[in-house]
Amino acid sequence: MLGCRSVAPRPVSAGEIESLAIGAWILGTGGGGSPYHALLNMRTLYRGGTVVSLIDAAELADDDLVAIVSNMGAPLVGQERLTDPATIARAVTMMEEYLGRRFRAIMSVEIGGGNAIQPFMAAALLGRPVVDGDAMGRAFPEAQMTSFAIHDLPMSPLTLADVRDNGVVVTRAASWKWMERLSRTACVAVGSIAGTCKAPRTGREVKDCGILGTTTKAIRLGDAVLAARRAHRDPIQAVLDAEGGRLLFTGKVQDVARRTTEGFLRGRAIVEGLDAFREHRFELAFQNEFAVGWLDGEPRVTTPDLICVMDTVSGEAVGTEVLRYGQRVTVIALPAPPVLLTPKGLEHVGPRAFGYDLEFTSVFG
Amino acid sequence: MLGCRSVAPRPVSAGEIESLAIGAWILGTGGGGSPYHALLNMRTLYRGGTVVSLIDAAELADDDLVAIVSNMGAPLVGQERLTDPATIARAVTMMEEYLGRRFRAIMSVEIGGGNAIQPFMAAALLGRPVVDGDAMGRAFPEAQMTSFAIHDLPMSPLTLADVRDNGVVVTRAASWKWMERLSRTACVAVGSIAGTCKAPRTGREVKDCGILGTTTKAIRLGDAVLAARRAHRDPIQAVLDAEGGRLLFTGKVQDVARRTTEGFLRGRAIVEGLDAFREHRFELAFQNEFAVGWLDGEPRVTTPDLICVMDTVSGEAVGTEVLRYGQRVTVIALPAPPVLLTPKGLEHVGPRAFGYDLEFTSVFG
Repeated sequence: MLGCRSVAPRPVSAGEIESLAIGAWILGTGGGGSPYHALLNMRTLYRGGTVVSLIDAAELADDDLVAIVSNMGAPLVGQERLTDPATIARAVTMMEEYLGRRFRAIMSVEIGGGNAIQPFMAAALLGRPVVDGDAMGRAFPEAQMTSFAIHDLPMSPLTLADVRDNGVVVTRAASWKWMERLSRTACVAVGSIAGTCKAPRTGREVKDCGILGTTTKAIRLGDAVLAARRAHRDPIQAVLDAEGGRLLFTGKVQDVARRTTEGFLRGRAIVEGLDAFREHRFELAFQNEFAVGWLDGEPRVTTPDLICVMDTVSGEAVGTEVLRYGQRVTVIALPAPPVLLTPKGLEHVGPRAFGYDLEFTSVFG
Repeated sequence: MLGCRSVAPRPVSAGEIESLAIGAWILGTGGGGSPYHALLNMRTLYRGGTVVSLIDAAELADDDLVAIVSNMGAPLVGQERLTDPATIARAVTMMEEYLGRRFRAIMSVEIGGGNAIQPFMAAALLGRPVVDGDAMGRAFPEAQMTSFAIHDLPMSPLTLADVRDNGVVVTRAASWKWMERLSRTACVAVGSIAGTCKAPRTGREVKDCGILGTTTKAIRLGDAVLAARRAHRDPIQAVLDAEGGRLLFTGKVQDVARRTTEGFLRGRAIVEGLDAFREHRFELAFQNEFAVGWLDGEPRVTTPDLICVMDTVSGEAVGTEVLRYGQRVTVIALPAPPVLLTPKGLEHVGPRAFGYDLEFTSVFG
């Protein structure tokens, strides 16, 4: 079932949600927020009888309207203010009220981390299907880092809801950077975490400009990890096999510098080599997600290649907010969606977009 | 004409706009933004044939809708980013689009400073009358410091427009303080100055909860200053006579500490006494507007009494953003509107609302 993309809406099982949480956390490249709390919410909803349906983008009519959601903010804050389905659902209904139109379906802006599950939480409460896809194929920290932005689609309006009774609509933005700035400052004002509904997309736009099939890809990835664990095989090798990834480094976390600033979680981490990498050192820089990795001081991997840090034994992804001294981790790279590798894509999400004066060279050649 | 409140809409003359700028700047108690750039805009509009009408609140039907506008931000920034009629008009039309309703008239949230003229600029572009009144009877820095907030009227929605193409709607706020915080952070994000349309008010609400007649009061005050100047009389004495004010101090500005922070202009100023006040010293604290005055270290006057600092010779008001070493100034107090002196009013605008642990004692006994 998972390997073949069905055309009709299909129910997503509770087991698939478990796999989604594992796979999405890997694709989160350290960010997108831990899926754990969202998973707990989904377990509760499913125990109550909820079943969310997944649809292919191909099923959307051109003039259908799709809600693009994300839980926005600094991942570390998500460890303290627990996510709940009502907040993300309210961002969606705020947008429906603002537009005076009903959404046909709900989709994640980023398949990485807990944001893979946010549309499922909204869908559960609002009785809509989730679209199989996203706009990043991973996680990224900023509003302009999407396939929709790369395709120059409109950036407004955006709705933002918090756990109190606050609601903000950014009705117009002078640019994607302004949309990022305006929504980020509102997010910081309510405590650096908020439910958001990004600029609505038509079915046509989703089909043309979305990164499709990434929900089933994340489920498949989680399945591969679970299958490997059950068979006492190496789950990291299973991920590398499933996605054509590359192992970059294995070692022990020696130092982490982390600060929650401007609505982001920024910092650096140093991993000391073990086994084949003894005497070597890997340094990681992150802004919510891992952005650049240096091997012995030389750039080894940069965004948009997916830089995934995983627990060496369990194959569980390690988020930038839980990275800590002494963890045994393996750094792998997974290939980025093609749209991110175009010249326009690299302008939006290449190393320079994160402030690193580096040319992008994919580890995949 | 000025002394008697007419019932029909009446055209406001170019001369009255000049008087309004002078009077409003005095009522601004150091803030509300210098009216100068708004006045230049109005001169241009009037030279082009525009005439704005003023109406009494009594003329409003109970279910009319009134736009409540202000140029929000730090006064010092208004010295660099010049005000223009289009921005404030856009905040009003954004609100009309959001509500799907048309405003009958436009009113200022604060009669103090340039914000007395902002509704005239919007009115000129949109062809609506201005309501004679405001919600402060002076100027105050924060959203919850209005007669509407004191009367517990709804605080949302609020629209915010900047000089680019950015637009933000705060659709819901958990409290007045949250409305202040959300709108302030959006304002800071666009450069600490923005056109805003506050929560719309019905005709009934304006009549019951507005501070009425303050536009004509400001015009009258400006007339008094101009008449005194023409007659070579003391303009400050003319203001004291016109409004039943009290002279508190005369001296020379010795020191000013000023910082633009969190969207406000905050600081302190020290005035060394001259003439009858020789050997004495007056200290002023401000957050956009003057909030507290100390005579020789003892509290002498606090908000909500109007603390007005005026050029000793010209009788021109001195804003907190232009206060500087060597200025010869006279500090006077004018009475506050009664609604601000109620226990509820003092909660919103008394010295404690500004962080000063002082009981309010009016200089008017």
